[in-house]
Amino acid sequence: MSLTIGVDVGGTKIAAGVVDEKGVIGARARRDTPSQDPDAIVESIIAVTRELAEGQQIDAVGVGSAGFVDSARSTVMFAPNLAWRDVPVRQRVADATGLPTVVENDANSAAWGEFRFGAAEDVDDMILLTIGTGVGGGVVLGGEVYRGAHGVAAEMGHIRMVPDGHLCGCGLRGCLEAYASGTALVREARTAASLPSAERLLSLAGGDSERITGPMVTAAAADGDELATVLMTQLARWLGEAMGSFTALFDPAVFVLGGGVSAAGDLLLGPAEETLRKQITGRGHRPEPEIRLATLGNDAGISGAADLARK
Amino acid sequence: MSLTIGVDVGGTKIAAGVVDEKGVIGARARRDTPSQDPDAIVESIIAVTRELAEGQQIDAVGVGSAGFVDSARSTVMFAPNLAWRDVPVRQRVADATGLPTVVENDANSAAWGEFRFGAAEDVDDMILLTIGTGVGGGVVLGGEVYRGAHGVAAEMGHIRMVPDGHLCGCGLRGCLEAYASGTALVREARTAASLPSAERLLSLAGGDSERITGPMVTAAAADGDELATVLMTQLARWLGEAMGSFTALFDPAVFVLGGGVSAAGDLLLGPAEETLRKQITGRGHRPEPEIRLATLGNDAGISGAADLARK
Amino acid sequence: MSLTIGVDVGGTKIAAGVVDEKGVIGARARRDTPSQDPDAIVESIIAVTRELAEGQQIDAVGVGSAGFVDSARSTVMFAPNLAWRDVPVRQRVADATGLPTVVENDANSAAWGEFRFGAAEDVDDMILLTIGTGVGGGVVLGGEVYRGAHGVAAEMGHIRMVPDGHLCGCGLRGCLEAYASGTALVREARTAASLPSAERLLSLAGGDSERITGPMVTAAAADGDELATVLMTQLARWLGEAMGSFTALFDPAVFVLGGGVSAAGDLLLGPAEETLRKQITGRGHRPEPEIRLATLGNDAGISGAADLARK
Amino acid sequence: MSLTIGVDVGGTKIAAGVVDEKGVIGARARRDTPSQDPDAIVESIIAVTRELAEGQQIDAVGVGSAGFVDSARSTVMFAPNLAWRDVPVRQRVADATGLPTVVENDANSAAWGEFRFGAAEDVDDMILLTIGTGVGGGVVLGGEVYRGAHGVAAEMGHIRMVPDGHLCGCGLRGCLEAYASGTALVREARTAASLPSAERLLSLAGGDSERITGPMVTAAAADGDELATVLMTQLARWLGEAMGSFTALFDPAVFVLGGGVSAAGDLLLGPAEETLRKQITGRGHRPEPEIRLATLGNDAGISGAADLARK
Repeated sequence: MSLTIGVDVGGTKIAAGVVDEKGVIGARARRDTPSQDPDAIVESIIAVTRELAEGQQIDAVGVGSAGFVDSARSTVMFAPNLAWRDVPVRQRVADATGLPTVVENDANSAAWGEFRFGAAEDVDDMILLTIGTGVGGGVVLGGEVYRGAHGVAAEMGHIRMVPDGHLCGCGLRGCLEAYASGTALVREARTAASLPSAERLLSLAGGDSERITGPMVTAAAADGDELATVLMTQLARWLGEAMGSFTALFDPAVFVLGGGVSAAGDLLLGPAEETLRKQITGRGHRPEPEIRLATLGNDAGISGAADLARK
Repeated sequence: MSLTIGVDVGGTKIAAGVVDEKGVIGARARRDTPSQDPDAIVESIIAVTRELAEGQQIDAVGVGSAGFVDSARSTVMFAPNLAWRDVPVRQRVADATGLPTVVENDANSAAWGEFRFGAAEDVDDMILLTIGTGVGGGVVLGGEVYRGAHGVAAEMGHIRMVPDGHLCGCGLRGCLEAYASGTALVREARTAASLPSAERLLSLAGGDSERITGPMVTAAAADGDELATVLMTQLARWLGEAMGSFTALFDPAVFVLGGGVSAAGDLLLGPAEETLRKQITGRGHRPEPEIRLATLGNDAGISGAADLARK
Repeated sequence: MSLTIGVDVGGTKIAAGVVDEKGVIGARARRDTPSQDPDAIVESIIAVTRELAEGQQIDAVGVGSAGFVDSARSTVMFAPNLAWRDVPVRQRVADATGLPTVVENDANSAAWGEFRFGAAEDVDDMILLTIGTGVGGGVVLGGEVYRGAHGVAAEMGHIRMVPDGHLCGCGLRGCLEAYASGTALVREARTAASLPSAERLLSLAGGDSERITGPMVTAAAADGDELATVLMTQLARWLGEAMGSFTALFDPAVFVLGGGVSAAGDLLLGPAEETLRKQITGRGHRPEPEIRLATLGNDAGISGAADLARK
Repeated sequence: MSLTIGVDVGGTKIAAGVVDEKGVIGARARRDTPSQDPDAIVESIIAVTRELAEGQQIDAVGVGSAGFVDSARSTVMFAPNLAWRDVPVRQRVADATGLPTVVENDANSAAWGEFRFGAAEDVDDMILLTIGTGVGGGVVLGGEVYRGAHGVAAEMGHIRMVPDGHLCGCGLRGCLEAYASGTALVREARTAASLPSAERLLSLAGGDSERITGPMVTAAAADGDELATVLMTQLARWLGEAMGSFTALFDPAVFVLGGGVSAAGDLLLGPAEETLRKQITGRGHRPEPEIRLATLGNDAGISGAADLARK
């Protein structure tokens, strides 16, 4: 059976694994990301790859990286969290390891993972939305990762939801990420911290509103706390509205929701679904997409990148 | 040289032509659309096809129809302006004419026409936006028409621009069509008619604000009228904002602007382009799309449908 | 008992009456407004005043006029529907009739009428909102009409509800009037006319969406028509949101809703009230205003202007 | 010459002074606010009053307090930063000091101070906007503080600017305070901190985005930093838009801008003024308000409260 290596390169850690044709991850390796040093990051990728390849027959390496990857799947044009600009990752890894290598956007890799081995393995057209610190995503159309003319498509978190809305970390205003990310959830929770209804959230944060975190909001909502539920519901509604636009544009069979905030499960899924159903143009005269939770968790990026390398 | 027939079926007229491999339209035929009678529309399509096929070697027929077409390119599921619901157009035309037939959404056909023979023939990834009574569009990705999981993708006019914004003819609120269509332009112009600055627009309309039309606004703007220019600029900015989101999602090489309002030319293109440039996430670290005016006019649908039938 | 004359000058008619100290209107007179001829309007006001004063002891005349009235209550600075600019109405009427005269904004007059003799006679601080073709209003603070530094306060219909929102007849965007007037209601109904749910509204309009009127929407909503109810509810919610801001700013004891659209009664009041309650800052820690329907109808302007003249 | 004492009670300090009829402050006293202990705050007010009254002829005491003050100017109904609910401040201070006492909202007091002795002493109708941690304000109409039916008018920071906009500390969404306060400025600056253009702001904050403060943004803007200027300009535009609505509603002669953020001076005034001029309904046909910077700084509350007590 063919084995490939998938490497998921994020701002804080590099996680890799040996993956078989069915998406099963065998041996694993992990490093902290030396995020201030562009060269050291490449060296770390090479190191984990060598470590995993040691004594095995490996056919290829797939590197899933945050940032903009060119359409040749070779160069990372821009990855702010990795301090990378125009880094020829493919060539450097291939030269150092002697293995065929491809570089792919990390969210595209994760989308491919869920498409091939996870929540959307039964359909041809799917959109992954990862709701974590930011909002990312990947699009699989007709059984292929959709990369766009220049390799930088599927920036799902940067659809503009509100004219002159919340400032986004990207510098624009009104992006979905500024409304539906974990960061946005925390921003709202901290702003609400002076309200009487914030009592429980505040106590989870030891009384210091600046210590409220996303998981605290999720936990409080899961326990039935009213304010936390309201905040989670609002986040979910923004997602639902965005999915309404994505449905008009992409007509996917399935949306898969992943990322840290998706741990909220039905608290997220319920209001997102309710909103989406109201926001489908031509409703009643067309098939509609399903919404599902991701099933692979953090492994989606590894198994997806590995599978794309095989392909 | 292979010849096919393209039939463009709109709410008011059916226009058809014999098209060669280079997109050149030879013989043409045209009928008013019997829009209240679903059957009669199909009969008219058959009639123009037979008329054009008479005495020629025709390889196939492509029907570009308003509305939702299924992913098998056979059945029009819903076309409100044609009173069609679940009409098996492909089979009926093929049976009656003996020619291989495909059915395609009309905007997809037009997009394909501009992609193959018009403004975007040099690229692989393009988006057509048609700005007429409504706002429609078609998407070509990697050299293929993108139809989605169920055949109803690329409803570009129904991306949501504003939460709880203007009511759209589709029943939802905030759709691009409610801001950037000719209908929206007329709505704004009529609302502004009581202002002193509306003098010229009103005089074009014989003093009756209810008679202001889109072409009047375009004409007044072309003559330098201030109010008309403001209204056209605002429409163009909404288009530019939408193209910002489309760029984040689809990463096209080229946007092509067609439809009646695109006759405004640089009055539309200028502010649309200026707005788009401000609304590209990650700007400076990624290639950007161009904006071009459509070059085929109303023929795009005929030549596109004909070419898709050949394919 | 002291009698005064109140004259209500609108864009289509001039209505006047002899009013006693309790606000009871005795003799009445009425003229069409010669709205294209500024002088003729003044002459008509003088004529109805003379007609009513004939053979009676009249103490004063109050003219309630559309438009901006200066703070000396003498000159109408600007009244677009009357073609008036800087017209010294007070002096001309006083000179011609020999009666002490005051000029007041028409909505201020109506507010004073409801305050003295109508829905708000039990309080000291009230706001009248008139929801008709436009949205107007008047404010009574501490038992006095509030006119502002220059006489042009209380343009309640021009609070900005939505940044870059609907175009208002005043030329700005996002004004309450563009969301909550009868004109806005008709605009929305016509836009919705192509929806299946518009069947009843369309049939009331003889099948022609351009003939839908505000009273048709009100009538359909009163009959339980779903679309009409949705449209009326949305209008009411905008009113409720605006009243939330007015509450924060003015802290009135009572809002009085008048004007043609207020004929919808509970269909308007219910959702307006529900929205207002959610939009009161500091809720639970402060007294809240009531909402009431106006009780004087079109007579409010006459009796209010007459009473202000007495004062 | 008559002397009164003004006491300005804020969340962090209690500042008091002896004030003459011309608003000149003589002796001063100051305490930290024991903000967790409602009783101790009252005791501190009494203590500073006694200290200042020692050996002088004092006619009255005016207490300017954060929060909702009832219309009898006696009781603080609700002041979240002082942990006060329904505290009879007037009676307790009067009983303890033997001096006639009034309680007034702190922003009303400051407005009165600027009206009588500061930036607006030449007009009868003015609005003070204080742009600090929050956005507050006071309204003087016809030479009187406007308090509303229940004493809680002039919550200028809680006019709703954006439907479903930014969450405000008051629990509602879209309030001016959530857009134009120092808190909002800091929120935006921190969100922008990951952009290349944030280099200077970040260095002022020692590289830690969470340490960016409002004064840092003001300082950077004053030095010409582009991002800081953009952020300050956006804040100013929101103020300008709000003043457009306030102009339609209140028709003031003058707006006075005070509070910590007003230290930005022309950086604030310029774009606020430019926006206001575009947002005045009926522009060109009515007199317009001026915008001025406050001249009394933190003393406005003391001298205003003292003067209101005299009155």
